[in-house]
Amino acid sequence: MADPRDETTAFTPKFGPDGLLPAIAVDAETGEVLMLAYMNEEALKRTLATGEVHYWSRSRAEIWHKGATSGNLQELAEILIDCDQDTLLLRVRQRGPACHTGRQSCFYRKLVTDDPESKELNGTVQLRFMDVE
Amino acid sequence: MADPRDETTAFTPKFGPDGLLPAIAVDAETGEVLMLAYMNEEALKRTLATGEVHYWSRSRAEIWHKGATSGNLQELAEILIDCDQDTLLLRVRQRGPACHTGRQSCFYRKLVTDDPESKELNGTVQLRFMDVE
Repeated sequence: MADPRDETTAFTPKFGPDGLLPAIAVDAETGEVLMLAYMNEEALKRTLATGEVHYWSRSRAEIWHKGATSGNLQELAEILIDCDQDTLLLRVRQRGPACHTGRQSCFYRKLVTDDPESKELNGTVQLRFMDVE
Repeated sequence: MADPRDETTAFTPKFGPDGLLPAIAVDAETGEVLMLAYMNEEALKRTLATGEVHYWSRSRAEIWHKGATSGNLQELAEILIDCDQDTLLLRVRQRGPACHTGRQSCFYRKLVTDDPESKELNGTVQLRFMDVE
């Protein structure tokens, strides 16, 4: 488990075989998890250069300047990286909602796990919309 | 962008071509992001069945019952899923530290982005260990 990436202060992000790194975006003030998307090296460079978060859109196969069309920009406050440098954590100031559905966070549904039947993941597992506080 | 997965209450996780789904683990009480790992369908089933988080270890290519050897188990409080159902958010009660380095969270370093030189990602970007509060 000992990896030189664990303790170094050199930034050596470990992009996956597809050239991508998952990036978790959290609200810089509240810490709420807003979304997860992916960055390639170019998206990361543009994010650092502009202070506005850029991802790599896997569905459109292009750089995705988050909020460029919707106005729901993410201003970068801070980037953290995990122990083995294969995941980013972005602390952002989110303008408007983060989710394309208009919700603040993309995580607005939870599994109903208090039903014993649901624990089998056999097609009966349901989601429930979360109460948004 | 309209995807039937967005509003349904049916749990239809969209595993990637490698059969995996990223899962963000956060502390159920504080909301702190602890780590990101991956689940395949079997890991998800075992997590639901046992109430203890199981991942798929990409490096060892096997089911990884988190904390089974270290004792640093993650008791599942809640599972959320994002709009297009390709990312999980796990709210966990973390026993001991989440990170194999002994730190509470795997995200203990941040990029030094206040230095203009660092914005080029040209090898001069450095990490700084975060102050743990």
